[in-house]
Amino acid sequence: MSKYSMGIDFGTLSARAVIVDIETGEEKATAVSKYAHGVMSKELLGLPLPADYALQHPKDYLDSLFVAIKECIERSGVDSADITGIGVDFTASTVLPVTEDGTPLCFLDEYKNEPHAYVKLWKHHASQKEADAINALAKETGAPWIARYGGIISSEWLFPKVLQILRENEQIYNRTFRFIEAGDWIVWQLTGVETHSVCTTGFKAIWSEEDGYPDKEFLKKLDPRLENIVGDKLSPDVFKLSKTAGYITEEVAAQTGLCAGTPVAPAFIDAHAALPALGITSPGKLLMIMGTSTCHILLSDKEIHIPGISGVVKDGIVDNMYAYEAGQSSVGDSFDWFMENCLPHTYYEDAMREGGDVFGYMRAKARQLSPGSNGVIALDWWNGNRTPYVNGGLRGMLVGLDINTAPEEIYRALIEATAYGTRSIIDIYEQNGIKIESIYAAGGIAEKDAMIMQIYADVTGREIHISGTAQACAYGSAVLGAVSENGYKTLTEASSKMKKLKDLCYKPIKENVEAYNELYKTYKTLTEFFGEKESGIMEGLKKYKKQ
Amino acid sequence: MSKYSMGIDFGTLSARAVIVDIETGEEKATAVSKYAHGVMSKELLGLPLPADYALQHPKDYLDSLFVAIKECIERSGVDSADITGIGVDFTASTVLPVTEDGTPLCFLDEYKNEPHAYVKLWKHHASQKEADAINALAKETGAPWIARYGGIISSEWLFPKVLQILRENEQIYNRTFRFIEAGDWIVWQLTGVETHSVCTTGFKAIWSEEDGYPDKEFLKKLDPRLENIVGDKLSPDVFKLSKTAGYITEEVAAQTGLCAGTPVAPAFIDAHAALPALGITSPGKLLMIMGTSTCHILLSDKEIHIPGISGVVKDGIVDNMYAYEAGQSSVGDSFDWFMENCLPHTYYEDAMREGGDVFGYMRAKARQLSPGSNGVIALDWWNGNRTPYVNGGLRGMLVGLDINTAPEEIYRALIEATAYGTRSIIDIYEQNGIKIESIYAAGGIAEKDAMIMQIYADVTGREIHISGTAQACAYGSAVLGAVSENGYKTLTEASSKMKKLKDLCYKPIKENVEAYNELYKTYKTLTEFFGEKESGIMEGLKKYKKQ
Repeated sequence: MSKYSMGIDFGTLSARAVIVDIETGEEKATAVSKYAHGVMSKELLGLPLPADYALQHPKDYLDSLFVAIKECIERSGVDSADITGIGVDFTASTVLPVTEDGTPLCFLDEYKNEPHAYVKLWKHHASQKEADAINALAKETGAPWIARYGGIISSEWLFPKVLQILRENEQIYNRTFRFIEAGDWIVWQLTGVETHSVCTTGFKAIWSEEDGYPDKEFLKKLDPRLENIVGDKLSPDVFKLSKTAGYITEEVAAQTGLCAGTPVAPAFIDAHAALPALGITSPGKLLMIMGTSTCHILLSDKEIHIPGISGVVKDGIVDNMYAYEAGQSSVGDSFDWFMENCLPHTYYEDAMREGGDVFGYMRAKARQLSPGSNGVIALDWWNGNRTPYVNGGLRGMLVGLDINTAPEEIYRALIEATAYGTRSIIDIYEQNGIKIESIYAAGGIAEKDAMIMQIYADVTGREIHISGTAQACAYGSAVLGAVSENGYKTLTEASSKMKKLKDLCYKPIKENVEAYNELYKTYKTLTEFFGEKESGIMEGLKKYKKQ
Repeated sequence: MSKYSMGIDFGTLSARAVIVDIETGEEKATAVSKYAHGVMSKELLGLPLPADYALQHPKDYLDSLFVAIKECIERSGVDSADITGIGVDFTASTVLPVTEDGTPLCFLDEYKNEPHAYVKLWKHHASQKEADAINALAKETGAPWIARYGGIISSEWLFPKVLQILRENEQIYNRTFRFIEAGDWIVWQLTGVETHSVCTTGFKAIWSEEDGYPDKEFLKKLDPRLENIVGDKLSPDVFKLSKTAGYITEEVAAQTGLCAGTPVAPAFIDAHAALPALGITSPGKLLMIMGTSTCHILLSDKEIHIPGISGVVKDGIVDNMYAYEAGQSSVGDSFDWFMENCLPHTYYEDAMREGGDVFGYMRAKARQLSPGSNGVIALDWWNGNRTPYVNGGLRGMLVGLDINTAPEEIYRALIEATAYGTRSIIDIYEQNGIKIESIYAAGGIAEKDAMIMQIYADVTGREIHISGTAQACAYGSAVLGAVSENGYKTLTEASSKMKKLKDLCYKPIKENVEAYNELYKTYKTLTEFFGEKESGIMEGLKKYKKQ
């Protein structure tokens, strides 16, 4: 009799459940449920929101969770008694304030119109001032933890978001029992037990096993009211992913069709969950999760503090390994921007005649160009730069344009720029002593766009292996779910049995590699000029920009 | 009884004649005739041409000349006996080899399939190697004349073109009696007298009143066969524009309806001819002739050698004044490139619904943006850079792009970049001691695009006066034609009587000037990086570019 696990993946717009055979890896069924309110960035239930807000409604998460689980079980034909465990992943840092019993503050009548009572989605960027304050104080006081995060923390993380709430609505802050990552909150809803995962807490809440959270003295200096936040409003109990967080409650069982008592793993960050889906549980393998942006994740047995990366967390994914994260802010976003803003009407009309796929149309044109034949080079900073400059104020650029430059030459330059950006991340890892032997890729671009992936192989000079599942995050959560008293003993074991890779591997082509080696030098010259020496240029351009 | 003059303007694609009342400036009639063969850049009468060629057929010039004159006289209702004189302008350096009686070599049966026997149009760029050789030798030998041309001569000029002929087809070189500018050749055809104008010869054939052409020693070092070219194949007799070149022959009179004996002035370069049309015969007034590219011309009573300008010629336009020329290679060309390659289909469809004028559509959108609000800055090097870097290998760029950048923000950045380019030319003149008090503009953009002209006023911080005629070059030639024994005594007198300016004057708006002063600093930082310190970046990008 087969055994199964379930993975539940909370993305930016929907939740997804998948049921997987833990022996064969067969995906028995998938169900997706969109959030009713989506991302609330302009208004909250009719009330206008300030700039750079991105809120979500926690009720959407619960609704989508129950719908997706129920539908998935029904479609799979699997007896839920055969589900040995459940893994959950979520975008991060996606944070909400809750009461003692886990009720979101926005569920309370008195706070239902208060933006700070809702979920702050990962891409809520209105806490930049707070991030700046934290970074400045960390620099001033020589805070030791900042080195783990590449020297700078992001406005997207938990502390800036919590500090914004404190500064702007102390009442909400005071009423909050716990500020919690949405992933951890979902696990709490499923199991009735509050846990905090090492993955979410280590990467997004400045926590490490050795040092815990930032110390009282630092927090007090940041704001005297924060002195006792650890213990009061942030839990010091942090769970490794190898532990079971809890078990499905009777109430959840009744609503979903799951069996009460099914083990649930601590929460994964969504991108990180892809790692075990591809079988990566050892050093030297860089995973790119490629979508609107790209996350670069790898494991190492060494802890090295690398400037410009997003973070390094001991036991962050696999026990006794250091998990590293770096990233590029704009990948698919740049390509979408091109299609919306730069595709000339003649091309558009041709593409419509040929079946309506503008990406396919441009791919066919760009594929015919050899490396460098476009004569154009770009910097891939359409959403700022994450690694290595951690500077959201940087901007994209195109160099080498002339009156003969064709749209496909620009499109290819945008793709190549994202590949150069990945190569520069590889360089940073390697220059700091972390060797990268091969590259793995998951996500829509990796799965669908052979032209882009070949460019990445040629630019990085490395083989690229491709995920065997189209839903690597949900699948990876199912792999983690398969680690339980009823399933596999370790994530490494589960991953080695359940990993999914395509047979396809993109191999670098020698002459292309040589051309890109040359062109990459130009990319580096440009990044050093615009990212370091003259980073004020981009700031200056924003001086008169309408917000 | 009214008196008239005729101006004849040879552009890149057609010849144009205008008859003007020399008292009132009234344009009595205009006639345009296209060249049958246009620009031959891919093939010559069915035979393929090498890269970067741009040839023309001199028979086209004669055909268009006669048609345009005849039609113009007929339409005007003017008695040709009342035409007091004729001025001719032509693109330059547009060069052809001719026999003793002025017959183009390509008219001879034995050379009719030989590219080097045809006209090399100004934008024939296949003589770059020859220009490089001349510049290198000038530097090595400390040739004094190079300083008059900003330190470097262009592949578009006469000597590189002649050297290419010598190197590639010595037979043609040997058979040539005279290498002559097409403008001077037309005057020869009209009058039966060979003349060479100070304007064409001074600006395009490295000639000055004081020093003549480059000396024998230099020419011999460049190629021993060139030792005696001056005298043998280049005429040392150079005419000031204040002299009459000759008189209409009986033969031309019979073919055109002109009266034999009508005085003809020496040839003007087309852009330079616009100066007297706008009444500019004194220092301090910069004229921009704005089209696909822009020429910047002004007069001064001082001779100053300014690095990066195209040239300074004593008596080049007005006697006893120094005429200066500088330029930008890509102005209208950049805007055309945008419309063809970057206008998204949604914009195109809207523009079609609103009447089909894409430029008008984009103008309306770009006009709503305040200075710098686009957040994007460009370098205007879509055809390389003429002044100050004289480097055809430089390329255009866009900086500051993000996923919210709209097409009109890019379009406006392209316009602003050309305005910054003009400001940098003004700076170079002024930094070298030539003060510019006001700006004048002629050409299609100046006449039609108020948004662009306001941006130029705001970026340069100066008032801009606009030509009162839509055909400033042809009209300026008519002003020169009005200087004869039957008309005005001097070009200054004719110009002051006949000048045409719109009442319209674009005045800089203080707050815009302040914003652009800031943004211009960024433009300069970028030009210094890409044009000077790292000019190899653009070269590097071309290494793998398909030709």
